[in-house]
Amino acid sequence: MKTKSRFLRAPVEPFTVEADAPAGDLLARMEKISFQGRNLATARRIWEKMLGADCTIFLGMAGALSAGGLRMVVAYLIAHRYVDCLVSTGANLYHDLHETRGRHHFIGSPHEDDAKLQGEHIDRVYDTYASEDEFCENDEWIAEFALTLERRPYTSREFLYRLGEYLWQQTGQEGILTNAYRANVPIFCPAIADSSIGMGLSQARHRDATAGLIDVVGDILESANIVIRHPRTASVVLGGGTPKNFINQASVQAEFFDDRVGGHRYALQIVTDVPHFGGASGSSLEEARSWGKLATDAEQVTVHADATIAMPLLVSALAASARDTLAARKPMTFELSGPTMAVNGRPFPTARFEAR
Amino acid sequence: MKTKSRFLRAPVEPFTVEADAPAGDLLARMEKISFQGRNLATARRIWEKMLGADCTIFLGMAGALSAGGLRMVVAYLIAHRYVDCLVSTGANLYHDLHETRGRHHFIGSPHEDDAKLQGEHIDRVYDTYASEDEFCENDEWIAEFALTLERRPYTSREFLYRLGEYLWQQTGQEGILTNAYRANVPIFCPAIADSSIGMGLSQARHRDATAGLIDVVGDILESANIVIRHPRTASVVLGGGTPKNFINQASVQAEFFDDRVGGHRYALQIVTDVPHFGGASGSSLEEARSWGKLATDAEQVTVHADATIAMPLLVSALAASARDTLAARKPMTFELSGPTMAVNGRPFPTARFEAR
Amino acid sequence: MKTKSRFLRAPVEPFTVEADAPAGDLLARMEKISFQGRNLATARRIWEKMLGADCTIFLGMAGALSAGGLRMVVAYLIAHRYVDCLVSTGANLYHDLHETRGRHHFIGSPHEDDAKLQGEHIDRVYDTYASEDEFCENDEWIAEFALTLERRPYTSREFLYRLGEYLWQQTGQEGILTNAYRANVPIFCPAIADSSIGMGLSQARHRDATAGLIDVVGDILESANIVIRHPRTASVVLGGGTPKNFINQASVQAEFFDDRVGGHRYALQIVTDVPHFGGASGSSLEEARSWGKLATDAEQVTVHADATIAMPLLVSALAASARDTLAARKPMTFELSGPTMAVNGRPFPTARFEAR
Amino acid sequence: MKTKSRFLRAPVEPFTVEADAPAGDLLARMEKISFQGRNLATARRIWEKMLGADCTIFLGMAGALSAGGLRMVVAYLIAHRYVDCLVSTGANLYHDLHETRGRHHFIGSPHEDDAKLQGEHIDRVYDTYASEDEFCENDEWIAEFALTLERRPYTSREFLYRLGEYLWQQTGQEGILTNAYRANVPIFCPAIADSSIGMGLSQARHRDATAGLIDVVGDILESANIVIRHPRTASVVLGGGTPKNFINQASVQAEFFDDRVGGHRYALQIVTDVPHFGGASGSSLEEARSWGKLATDAEQVTVHADATIAMPLLVSALAASARDTLAARKPMTFELSGPTMAVNGRPFPTARFEAR
Repeated sequence: MKTKSRFLRAPVEPFTVEADAPAGDLLARMEKISFQGRNLATARRIWEKMLGADCTIFLGMAGALSAGGLRMVVAYLIAHRYVDCLVSTGANLYHDLHETRGRHHFIGSPHEDDAKLQGEHIDRVYDTYASEDEFCENDEWIAEFALTLERRPYTSREFLYRLGEYLWQQTGQEGILTNAYRANVPIFCPAIADSSIGMGLSQARHRDATAGLIDVVGDILESANIVIRHPRTASVVLGGGTPKNFINQASVQAEFFDDRVGGHRYALQIVTDVPHFGGASGSSLEEARSWGKLATDAEQVTVHADATIAMPLLVSALAASARDTLAARKPMTFELSGPTMAVNGRPFPTARFEAR
Repeated sequence: MKTKSRFLRAPVEPFTVEADAPAGDLLARMEKISFQGRNLATARRIWEKMLGADCTIFLGMAGALSAGGLRMVVAYLIAHRYVDCLVSTGANLYHDLHETRGRHHFIGSPHEDDAKLQGEHIDRVYDTYASEDEFCENDEWIAEFALTLERRPYTSREFLYRLGEYLWQQTGQEGILTNAYRANVPIFCPAIADSSIGMGLSQARHRDATAGLIDVVGDILESANIVIRHPRTASVVLGGGTPKNFINQASVQAEFFDDRVGGHRYALQIVTDVPHFGGASGSSLEEARSWGKLATDAEQVTVHADATIAMPLLVSALAASARDTLAARKPMTFELSGPTMAVNGRPFPTARFEAR
Repeated sequence: MKTKSRFLRAPVEPFTVEADAPAGDLLARMEKISFQGRNLATARRIWEKMLGADCTIFLGMAGALSAGGLRMVVAYLIAHRYVDCLVSTGANLYHDLHETRGRHHFIGSPHEDDAKLQGEHIDRVYDTYASEDEFCENDEWIAEFALTLERRPYTSREFLYRLGEYLWQQTGQEGILTNAYRANVPIFCPAIADSSIGMGLSQARHRDATAGLIDVVGDILESANIVIRHPRTASVVLGGGTPKNFINQASVQAEFFDDRVGGHRYALQIVTDVPHFGGASGSSLEEARSWGKLATDAEQVTVHADATIAMPLLVSALAASARDTLAARKPMTFELSGPTMAVNGRPFPTARFEAR
Repeated sequence: MKTKSRFLRAPVEPFTVEADAPAGDLLARMEKISFQGRNLATARRIWEKMLGADCTIFLGMAGALSAGGLRMVVAYLIAHRYVDCLVSTGANLYHDLHETRGRHHFIGSPHEDDAKLQGEHIDRVYDTYASEDEFCENDEWIAEFALTLERRPYTSREFLYRLGEYLWQQTGQEGILTNAYRANVPIFCPAIADSSIGMGLSQARHRDATAGLIDVVGDILESANIVIRHPRTASVVLGGGTPKNFINQASVQAEFFDDRVGGHRYALQIVTDVPHFGGASGSSLEEARSWGKLATDAEQVTVHADATIAMPLLVSALAASARDTLAARKPMTFELSGPTMAVNGRPFPTARFEAR
């Protein structure tokens, strides 16, 4: 028989059913099948490599993940330093705050009569409900917190650190904001004005014309400086949106000032959007290479799946298989309590890129 | 404090990470979150109910699931009678046959140069490869098998039973076709002419003008008679296409002759298509109610996910949690070896609906 | 200034608004923009090339296009020989028959209460309604027609020709079936058993055990022979499903018997499905090259759009710009009235591929 | 014959081909068909109603529409006051600026080798290319412009007005920014830090620690005050993202201070995202009702389509059919040159919601 083509070396191995198999075993066997099952399994492997590779790992988070029940997964990733820096939409942080303060989101139906819900002051996020009155009370709580801050611009990073600190003091509860505060993991929220956190800030402003000033341009400098300080980065993106672009922008902006930066070394994204309409949310990691957002030889994978299916399986498996790698990991330490952040004890330059 | 709205009773419970949690535990906790994670968990619960509810369970299978590594999952569902009747595209049965005969599909890349693959006679299915030469040899094998059959019309059900029998005799290997043969589970393939099995049949015809006659209209009568014989049915659909519609059509056609039939009592579908373009593959289970395909009070769920992610998790969990229900299950027995099939020892009328 | 990269030669030209611009002008200007707008414009250009290139043009049609208001577009394409051979799902032909017989589909809402619709015997297709009672009467009409035919196997091609003939005699109305009959354009329906036409046939069988026998394997031979007779083909696919695969299969099967066949020379598809889940409906035209379904140097384009938006614009433009090319076109003539079809006056071999 | 159901009153009228039909005629006939074709036609009708209904019309713009060739469509809508206020991602404004400055985006391929593009400093957006060197030069140009501004916080609205003014002075070219400047149409960019405009601002900051301060919280107050000043609003959204939410947030925030506000009276969105993954980009307009973002009796439509197909057709038709309505329209006049904007000659309160 003639020699097989080099393209026909690794057979697909059909997934066999084992009752109640553990997450790690599921993914190990899914790596041998096709399509998005294989990609999800590959995502686990790439994340493990990130953890063992002396990289700064950015996590981007868009979509209603906190309201939808994934906030403690993200909180876990932060507390155990599976990631080093979070970039999030405002809504995810707001819904996290809502639950950390002891409120809830509720199981609902996508087919309920929305006029009826509106009549009862219930806000719907697809199949999930929340109390509008409780949301209004959160906005007020945020406004009051914002009024306790100094009357100067805060980057979203500094503001969210302070917010996490205050939330922790008030509640003692785990969550994204509180765990990030306790683990000194920076959070950036480039579109903070497009969220209920922004609405709370605007209500602070309404009461005091000098309150609620967020310096989102400062965030650009800080995020790029994180890359410049250690030009080996990785990117984990859930759902596109501003976080996805902001993480890539940090690398592109950093490269402008430091040619050691050459794009993320590893990248994984879990998205439901598609590339062919041209939007950034669905853009491919191949395309990211053209921009230098991703190193030309980076290991990367895109998983086309809802994060509410992909993340429980992926992180449950990773938590076991990456245990040793994680224990040996020596991530950078951040100092986040002031207007100028520091990394590994050395502060960034004030209002400047850390150009070489 | 005032009473909560009735809409705000069941809180979303954030998923918490437990290292290497087993499949059943993952789904149990995903049932308390939102979006497609919740829907996948609900699918497990509904399938369990089907198994405990004296229903005939149809499984529909479209998309490249066999080539993509899920054929042994389907084979398992058949062997253990999680389902009672399979409706499949021809490709899924063909790719199953390919592997049962000892060939493989191979792990590939969606970005490979297709002209190069074509040059090496390699067929690509997204990220999966197969040898075209081996496919041609399968076609020939099917043609030769078809020439061993009587020169009369065979329903796809009878033909596929005989094919499974022959395949089992030749290989002794588990798979969809062979397990269905051994478990006496009928398989319908309404679009058999649109597949390589059809191509094999056409090559039999090429050699003998009286060979390869498949009576797909006969399949309609048999599938409806299965419903009429026991007018309690359930539907599990992977991926839309002709199987989805054919399963619903069996119920609608049966109802025309027997008013006890009132649509499927339970339904779950795992799809990637969407409703708003009007195609049947993406159509909602709500819409199915208008047609009477689904009982008005049926329990149902749609999971928007790739089956290569959803099925490994779902079936691994189900295999544990449904064990007792399955053991107590008394599914109908089929007799499939002749032109007229029998259920529970009693044959269907020849060429007629079993009208009351 | 340094020389521009060869990649930066053709600028995107922003679309400028001209009030009430005609279709052809819209597409001409959309060819200079990006994403799916450009692809739709490219589809027009490729279709024009097909018409001028001595090709046999296959049209595939899946999704609820007839119910959704596109049946007269397809009827127009057939009557004027923009296409030479139609491959369709059964539903599209059935819904065409429904309207040709003077019934209607109705404008509805995707949000209506389906239990209420079911109570009034109304079937919903997303935002479109139809009377179930009228559908049942169609089934009966088809059964009665089928009982007038000879008691022998009919290919779907021969059966549908006879059905179009009868429908034309009864109604004198234009439509897909009637226009195809009058223009001698063959229609294949490989999944005819998965449709209400199949249901009508099954009701004929119920009354007469020798009626309603459709030879779908015969369709495979005839469709491949069309390719072998003139091994230059083109493919226009709306919506995936069995028609898409059947058209490609005709080419692949033909190549098995005639090595002059080398895949379609031109291909355009208008789809809403995506490639990354591995299903054939969403598969890319690049992938089709690996199988030899498409010539390696074929001109091709995929338009990711709903056909109810894309087709009105595309065909209205094409009807003007392709006028002269169409007038000069000399398509093959088909003879469809018997069990063996003929092309350009020369019949195919009976029950055989026209192997060289 | 018995009376027809009330559900079966308005028949689908099949689209008939007329060679080179004008845009308005296409849409008029598409309104009688189904699925997204009907929705696009409905969008035209709803937009016409907005124009005749004494509403403030917000336009949201996400996705790569400027790079993709739609910037002059948006510029047209602004100049002719089809819309009154633009909310955009930073990228769309940046790519507009790029072209207004005489640079181009280029027609490319989604299949090009991205490493090769990267090597030539070419950035890819799906099938569209741009010169990275030109982009860097834009960033520098923005930085220099930012350094000419006062050293105080600017809302994105004030900043973008000044940017449009400067761009107009420098180039005299039409575009989104320049037309908005000349028509006194406010532009909000809530995620300005997540874009190359933000990168330009950060480079200004790098040179001068007091430069580049954008007050995005101030934007929340101004956008809500626009709603409070005239609590009749409408929303046109292209593509989700921050603009979609920000427009809705303006209404929700306004209602908090003025109970005459009751959500948008009219809404249309052209999106490619879907609701069932829970993200805001794909969220339905039904869901928006529960939040009070949309009036319970609002007329609304969602078109699931790529804007590069939908917008050329829609706006070309609207430009003709809405001519008279537009001529009679008396939109509010904005005064945008200072830190506090004015509407119809009356300034908003400084740093406060215009609470009653």
